[in-house]
Amino acid sequence: MKIRQEDIDDLTRGAAFLGSGGGGDPYIGRLIAKKAIDEFGAPRIVTPQGLRDDDVVVSIAGYGAPTVQLEKLIGEGELVYALGAMEEHLGITVTAILPAEIGGGNSILPITLAAKKGLAVVDADGMGRAFPELQMNNLSIDGLRATPMVVVDEHLNSAIVTTEDNHVAERVTRAVAVQLGLRVIICCFPITGADVKRSAIANTLSTAIEIGKAIRLGRETGMPVDGLIQCLRASAEYHTAAVLFEGKIYDLTKDTSRGFFEGVCRLIGLDDPNDSAEVVFQNENLIVRVNGEVKTIVPDLICIVDQETAEPITTQSMRYGQRVKVIGVSAPEALRRELALEVVGPSAFGLEEEFTPIEDLILSGPAEVEPRVVG
Amino acid sequence: MKIRQEDIDDLTRGAAFLGSGGGGDPYIGRLIAKKAIDEFGAPRIVTPQGLRDDDVVVSIAGYGAPTVQLEKLIGEGELVYALGAMEEHLGITVTAILPAEIGGGNSILPITLAAKKGLAVVDADGMGRAFPELQMNNLSIDGLRATPMVVVDEHLNSAIVTTEDNHVAERVTRAVAVQLGLRVIICCFPITGADVKRSAIANTLSTAIEIGKAIRLGRETGMPVDGLIQCLRASAEYHTAAVLFEGKIYDLTKDTSRGFFEGVCRLIGLDDPNDSAEVVFQNENLIVRVNGEVKTIVPDLICIVDQETAEPITTQSMRYGQRVKVIGVSAPEALRRELALEVVGPSAFGLEEEFTPIEDLILSGPAEVEPRVVG
Repeated sequence: MKIRQEDIDDLTRGAAFLGSGGGGDPYIGRLIAKKAIDEFGAPRIVTPQGLRDDDVVVSIAGYGAPTVQLEKLIGEGELVYALGAMEEHLGITVTAILPAEIGGGNSILPITLAAKKGLAVVDADGMGRAFPELQMNNLSIDGLRATPMVVVDEHLNSAIVTTEDNHVAERVTRAVAVQLGLRVIICCFPITGADVKRSAIANTLSTAIEIGKAIRLGRETGMPVDGLIQCLRASAEYHTAAVLFEGKIYDLTKDTSRGFFEGVCRLIGLDDPNDSAEVVFQNENLIVRVNGEVKTIVPDLICIVDQETAEPITTQSMRYGQRVKVIGVSAPEALRRELALEVVGPSAFGLEEEFTPIEDLILSGPAEVEPRVVG
Repeated sequence: MKIRQEDIDDLTRGAAFLGSGGGGDPYIGRLIAKKAIDEFGAPRIVTPQGLRDDDVVVSIAGYGAPTVQLEKLIGEGELVYALGAMEEHLGITVTAILPAEIGGGNSILPITLAAKKGLAVVDADGMGRAFPELQMNNLSIDGLRATPMVVVDEHLNSAIVTTEDNHVAERVTRAVAVQLGLRVIICCFPITGADVKRSAIANTLSTAIEIGKAIRLGRETGMPVDGLIQCLRASAEYHTAAVLFEGKIYDLTKDTSRGFFEGVCRLIGLDDPNDSAEVVFQNENLIVRVNGEVKTIVPDLICIVDQETAEPITTQSMRYGQRVKVIGVSAPEALRRELALEVVGPSAFGLEEEFTPIEDLILSGPAEVEPRVVG
């Protein structure tokens, strides 16, 4: 499979949705990927099973606070530098890129780099969505090391971080990123094809393209949100999906002092102004409460889309007055394992609520769209 | 010249004096250097002129907040790791170690590593004293890059930092050090023998040994401070030296929140309790005011010693009730250049006072020991 120019719009839109509010800006991702494909041709997309066990795989991603990304464009130079520094440091020749997470920017940077360097991109990722921290990655949950990791900024200032523990790597990398202006490229998780087969979340790139396509086709019939929900329910990884709230953003708090984009988005109902909802985020959306009741909680996905067009709205593009739908989606099962919940569950984000699958949460109260569990 | 076991005590004492309150703990430095010499033999000491122009030289130092050093002993493992990582990263074979600064710990770590690896140590250093930040180094002032630099902690967590600007390197390294517990080893300034000849402050290791010896011999005649002052005045680099104040520490503020050991030490006179002095420090002593009047200011050296024994007291070993003498010393001329004062002068530490040489400051008021300018 090759990814074509015309897939890029679908992919960035679908990936921005799965990014759950984070994962980088889809507009910028789109621009640089199209340019790279134009110049160097489309990269080959391989399934995890299509990799050789001894394939040499790394992840590449934008890292920091996504708000800053809007002001500092990513150049191809940083991507190429990060890959080259990793290869030189370890004395390896990388054969394929695994997206670190699925998001509007971070699903597409690997495609840009792979196009430029003639590498394959794996139809999979480490998170099955986007998360704010390094160790919140199924590779890490399964015991693989994130380091050695290259961190590089737009001036090619860099650090090669090596730690035994991925939590320490996250702390060090966050501190470096803050000093370098909160918009850096990281090249991390040097692993093998066998590791990818065991621990990556499979098919997420192609599912993102399907989601983007469902939104696009849904617009032609005026029902993009319905198309989106149907597409998710038909997917293997994201079987439960429901619209949790329809409202207008009336309040937004934002803070980047800890090196993330954090805050709370508050909404009032469009039909009944007595209805309210709030979404708490740390780069990505973490929890949504409707009239005080939890309706979806991390690691399940919470995605905010435009009420009319179903265009995904990332946390950094949320604005006062936007009319939106809040959609909850079940996370891939790997992220719901007990082992995984310690790393990507509510307590990892300082939330007091226990994880409860969206299936159970939306059955306990009225949801606008009745969920249908597939498979 | 070889450095012998019996030189180590003199060296650490003299270097702790030149460290101006910083430069690492002399007690710990002494222990690990003696062990290394015992095990591997004494390293060869070479003058800058004794280097070949194409010698491959690096600096090695402890970095962070010196208070933490007391709780976390430096292992030889970190030193060897840092050197090895630098050699591997750059594909070089290091032939000599240049101390990054002269201080009780940081003059001696290079000797420890050189003993273990059979390398030469240069009788010189980058600062001619100790300073808290990376770019406050005459190599940096002369335009040499501090990076690539290896930063490593006691668990061998590491970062290889590469930046164009040494100020950025300092910011990134400080942030990494804070995350790794404020006690790390750095290997930095990969330079040539020719660079050392041009930009290092020469003879500082042997001067430190002379100073330590003068204190030791002075104790035998009951006048160690006089011996110390005479030794400094006879040296080429530190021609002016005077006791500025004799008093008791009655107040001490301390703060490590910025990744340094910062604070103010306040003293009252021993003869006349109406006399007072205060010393402001950031790892190293920066300025001393006697009865409100500036008597010595950075980059000139301010050293606090025990009133009786002339034992140097580092900032982290200052305690309430200690009876001390505060000594001011002229900095090596390289640090007093206009170019240098921008980097190591008062404004670089947020002080409002302009730099005035100690020669001029102590002539303006009564000093206990009349200065004699030599050479």
